[in-house]
Amino acid sequence: MKIYDWPTGPYPARVRIALAEKKIQSRVEFVPVNLWKGEHKKADFLAKNYSGTLPVLEVEDGTFLAECTAITVYLDALEGEPTLTGRTAYEKGVIHMMTKQAEIEMLDAISVYFHHATPGLGPDVELYQNREWGLRQRDKALRGMHYFDSVLRKQNFIAGEAFSMADIAVIGGFIFAAIVELPIPQECEALLAWFARMQERPSVREQLAIVPPIH
Amino acid sequence: MKIYDWPTGPYPARVRIALAEKKIQSRVEFVPVNLWKGEHKKADFLAKNYSGTLPVLEVEDGTFLAECTAITVYLDALEGEPTLTGRTAYEKGVIHMMTKQAEIEMLDAISVYFHHATPGLGPDVELYQNREWGLRQRDKALRGMHYFDSVLRKQNFIAGEAFSMADIAVIGGFIFAAIVELPIPQECEALLAWFARMQERPSVREQLAIVPPIH
Ligand SMILES: N[C@@H](CCC(=O)N[C@@H](CS)C(=O)NCC(=O)O)C(=O)O
Ligand SMILES: N[C@@H](CCC(=O)N[C@@H](CS)C(=O)NCC(=O)O)C(=O)O
Repeated sequence: MKIYDWPTGPYPARVRIALAEKKIQSRVEFVPVNLWKGEHKKADFLAKNYSGTLPVLEVEDGTFLAECTAITVYLDALEGEPTLTGRTAYEKGVIHMMTKQAEIEMLDAISVYFHHATPGLGPDVELYQNREWGLRQRDKALRGMHYFDSVLRKQNFIAGEAFSMADIAVIGGFIFAAIVELPIPQECEALLAWFARMQERPSVREQLAIVPPIH
Repeated sequence: MKIYDWPTGPYPARVRIALAEKKIQSRVEFVPVNLWKGEHKKADFLAKNYSGTLPVLEVEDGTFLAECTAITVYLDALEGEPTLTGRTAYEKGVIHMMTKQAEIEMLDAISVYFHHATPGLGPDVELYQNREWGLRQRDKALRGMHYFDSVLRKQNFIAGEAFSMADIAVIGGFIFAAIVELPIPQECEALLAWFARMQERPSVREQLAIVPPIH
C-alpha cells in the first residue's frame, strides 16, 4: 500500500497512529505531497482525491481511499479483530459519533482557523480567506476542548472505556492546536490528563516526536 | 429506540431511509424537535447531543447516538448482514469515503449555504450569519454535483456497484438542494439518471413524499 502523506500534518498523523496501533506500518510506502507548495491542489493529485486533502491511501489494485475515518475503517478491517472501530453495533456507533464530533468540534475547526485566520499554507496556496469565519472556528474549537474535557470526566477514553479511532482524532486536534499555537485551556484537567495517558502509547509517542511541541 | 427528528429535514431523512432499507422502522418511536423554534439549541437537547443537530438516536439503555453516519453504522450492525456499510474492508472504506465526500462536497455545503446566505431557520435561530462563506459553500456544492456526476458516469452507485449509505447521503443532498431551491445542473445527466433510479426504491420514495419537490 502507498500513503500520500505529509509527515507533520495532523490528519496524516491519524493514519500513522492507526497503522502503528495495528502494527502494519511496514506494509506501507509513504509518498510525500508538499502542502506548502500546493501540490495537493494540482490536477495530478486531485485525480486521486477530488477533495484535495491528505492523507490518501492507494490500495494494491491502484484505487484510492481518502478521508482519515474511511482509511482507518479500512485498515482496521484488513485482518484480525477490529481494535480501533469497535466490535458491537453500539461500540461502532459511539466510536463513529465521537470521531465525527472530534472533527466538527475540534480538528476541522482548527483547520479552518489555520487556513482562514492565519497565513495558513501561504498566499500561493490560500487563494481565499474568510478571517471572521476562521476566528469563529477557533472559538468553536476552544469550546470543543471543554466538551471533550467534560466527556473525559466521566470515562477514560473519548468513546468509552477503550482506546479507539475517536481518541486518535482528538490527538489530531492536539497536533493541529500545537501548529497554530492554540494552548489547551489549563482548566481542561481531564482532557490534559487523558493526553498524558495517550503519550504512554508508543504509537502516539512516535508521532508526537515529529510534530511541533504541544502546549 | 427513539429518534429525535424533524420529519422534513435532510439529515433525519438519511436515517429514515436507512431504517426503511433495514425494515426496522416499526422498532423506532419518532420524537419531533422543532428546528424552527430552535428547540435543538436549548440545554435540554444539547445534553443529548452537544453539537445541537438532529437526528439523535436514543438506544434502549437511555444513551444517545448523534451523527447520521454513526447512527447508520449502528443500525446496519444491529442484526443480520450489513447491507448499507459494506462487508469487506475495501467496501467499508469506499462507502465511508464517499459518504464523507457527499457531506463535505454537497450536503454540509448546502447546509452552510442555508444557514448563512438565506434566512435559514429565521432570525431567532440564526444568531450569526456569514453570507460570503455561505455563498462560497453553495458554489462548492454545485461543483460537488458535477463531481458525483463524474463518479456515476463510471459506476451505478455512489460507492461502486451496490446501494449503500453513500447513496443515502447524496439523496440527503438532493433533499437539501430542493429546500434551498438549488436546481441540479441539467448537464449532470448521470447524476440525474441515478436519482431517477433511486426513486424506484420504496425507502426513498416514501421519504421524498414528505419533502419539498426536487427540481
Ligand atoms: N477530511 C479530511 C481532511 C484532511 C486534511 O484537511 N488534511 C490536511 C493535511 S494535514 C490537508 O490536506 N490540508 C490541505 C488543505 O486543506 O489545503 C480527512 O479527514 O482526511
Ligand atoms: N453532522 C450532522 C448534521 C445534522 C444536521 O445538520 N441536521 C440538521 C437538521 S436537518 C440540523 O439539526 N440543523 C439545525 C442547525 O444546524 O441549526 C449529522 O450528520 O447528523
